[in-house]
Amino acid sequence: MDNFTAYNPVTLHFGKNILSTLGATLKEYGNRVLLVYGKGSIRKSGLYDRILEDLVKQGFTVSEYGGIKSNPVIEDVDAAAAIGREHQVDVILAVGGGSVIDSSKIISVAIPVNNPGWDFFTGKATAKSAVPVVAVLTLAATGTEMNPFAVVSNHALGQKSAYGSPLTFPKHSFLDPGLTFSVPHNYTAYGVADLIAHCFEAWFGIGETTLTDRFVISIIKEAMEYGPKLLGDLQNYEYREKIMFAATMALNGTTMYGRSTGDWGVHSAGHCLSLLYDVPHGASLTIVYPAWMRHFKNRIGDRIAQLGSQLFDEPLSADESINRIESFFKSLDCPTRLSDMNIPGDHREPLFDAMVHSKVSGGNVKMKEDDYAALIRLYL
Amino acid sequence: MDNFTAYNPVTLHFGKNILSTLGATLKEYGNRVLLVYGKGSIRKSGLYDRILEDLVKQGFTVSEYGGIKSNPVIEDVDAAAAIGREHQVDVILAVGGGSVIDSSKIISVAIPVNNPGWDFFTGKATAKSAVPVVAVLTLAATGTEMNPFAVVSNHALGQKSAYGSPLTFPKHSFLDPGLTFSVPHNYTAYGVADLIAHCFEAWFGIGETTLTDRFVISIIKEAMEYGPKLLGDLQNYEYREKIMFAATMALNGTTMYGRSTGDWGVHSAGHCLSLLYDVPHGASLTIVYPAWMRHFKNRIGDRIAQLGSQLFDEPLSADESINRIESFFKSLDCPTRLSDMNIPGDHREPLFDAMVHSKVSGGNVKMKEDDYAALIRLYL
Repeated sequence: MDNFTAYNPVTLHFGKNILSTLGATLKEYGNRVLLVYGKGSIRKSGLYDRILEDLVKQGFTVSEYGGIKSNPVIEDVDAAAAIGREHQVDVILAVGGGSVIDSSKIISVAIPVNNPGWDFFTGKATAKSAVPVVAVLTLAATGTEMNPFAVVSNHALGQKSAYGSPLTFPKHSFLDPGLTFSVPHNYTAYGVADLIAHCFEAWFGIGETTLTDRFVISIIKEAMEYGPKLLGDLQNYEYREKIMFAATMALNGTTMYGRSTGDWGVHSAGHCLSLLYDVPHGASLTIVYPAWMRHFKNRIGDRIAQLGSQLFDEPLSADESINRIESFFKSLDCPTRLSDMNIPGDHREPLFDAMVHSKVSGGNVKMKEDDYAALIRLYL
Repeated sequence: MDNFTAYNPVTLHFGKNILSTLGATLKEYGNRVLLVYGKGSIRKSGLYDRILEDLVKQGFTVSEYGGIKSNPVIEDVDAAAAIGREHQVDVILAVGGGSVIDSSKIISVAIPVNNPGWDFFTGKATAKSAVPVVAVLTLAATGTEMNPFAVVSNHALGQKSAYGSPLTFPKHSFLDPGLTFSVPHNYTAYGVADLIAHCFEAWFGIGETTLTDRFVISIIKEAMEYGPKLLGDLQNYEYREKIMFAATMALNGTTMYGRSTGDWGVHSAGHCLSLLYDVPHGASLTIVYPAWMRHFKNRIGDRIAQLGSQLFDEPLSADESINRIESFFKSLDCPTRLSDMNIPGDHREPLFDAMVHSKVSGGNVKMKEDDYAALIRLYL
């Protein structure tokens, strides 16, 4: 094992009707709430009305910022932070999926320092304090509900970057699987793929750790068993619950004990697809992962074969493992080539340029420009 | 899954030479340290001198309480708390195994309120604040380094009880597997058994949760694979590391996600053995667990069979599962009958009385006096 530090101060409230204690939790931090949410799905589902009514009834003063985009952009962060500053909010209530919660983390550290949010990504600003974030999760995918990470795009600079500090953990996260019933088939599938990809990023990182590997395999197997079942029965609470819990465990630190770093090269390459073509995050990962494994199988073939063999409970070569994983992604109706997304035009040059611009690479498997070109060829 | 709350604010520092940052961590809390330790093994190993020298060099003022017993008693807690109060300590440095860290947790909440430590176990005192506890673990077994629980005996009352509150988590725990090299064969085995028993207590609790079950099986399999290897090679860092990490994961909350309670009936019964005959905690569990499973197999046979089948990777009945688990404990040279401990006298009556007095029962599998008698017969 590599030396590691485990620290995760999030209080996770998980289960049926768990929102009943939301008000009491918010009260711990004060009375003025900044409600942050997305492009309207919580309005459609009725969750917005339910929460707002509840907060008003309990005497909270609520200001709000709606309209966080599904690949969140820094302009929304700055606009929301301005509202938070103006209303001197005591707590941020983030209701939504990864985009809303990620944005709220940056809003929470941007409010006190009065810097543009992007300054945290460039290192120009340092988080010194944070308005507490309480999250209500409505999409099982990114694991942001129990980690400090935020990924935000800056289209003016052509960058999609990640930031995290010990101050950007949500204080509390509320996970009621019933709140994910309204997530459609495709985004449910992307969520399953995303959580599996998070496990892969840990698996291909640095540090040999047998027990943590067992945890990683456990999480992926859970997702592979119940992901397809959920896609066949989207209103099934039990399946929603299993996938929601698996997504949290896939990126709350558990997969990283005994590793000094994950890889994250595929995420980094996937971000370029999202940035250029607004490809949903989970879909970008199912496109890049098979290509990445094929391209690097000479370097990490043993580890790929070990992964496939454990996931499918039979001895598999690296090639067989990649094929089986790719087939699994296809069985979720996830794209495994960019062409599956039907985006017109020739993408090779813009993608290559974006990868160069973003200095795409992994923590373990380093990438150079030759790799970019090969990777793009494999996933086009 | 049953609704659950996950919360664990401990910062765990794990790995080789991890103590190098101990001083900097203590400094966060102040200058006056209460060093709590046990009956001398850290003096023999040189760890005491090393830490004290280091603290003095870094300008800390150190008061100390040594002599915590391996089944810790409340008198030591009170004596240590008195020293802590007298010296107005800023932080408690607990160096040792479960007994030392458990005692330190009670010391930490007893110092501010000026109550006897036992008042927390009876509910007469409530923890309102705590002197921060920083732990250095020297024995892989109880998992106390990453949970809020403390088990202490009160011989005057004939009780061994557990206490925990959100205030009794250690702030930081330092785990260097190298510090467990000096743990002898028998206590190393008891530690392996203890961590497996903790997993069992979760497994036999209330709440169906497939992913958490996978985690539980992962931890036990790790212990069953590397426990015997470690016992054959006590100076092997890699094996020490694997068992130390597994012991932490066995009782830091991970096994409880999606369960409303663990069982803990076997622990409760085992405490009676420790209380009456000073049987080491881990040994008390390998004595009681096979008996408990045999006695209750009509109630929880399916769950026992499921456990055995998953651990040994073949379909097993409940009886076969119990036999295999018992054989595994024996293979660690752990006792599976009280008679293995060679304690003279007839123990039936005192054990029965102790179980009645302690109201021994489980969170899931309830026990009554008839069960006590049957259980004792099975493990004598």
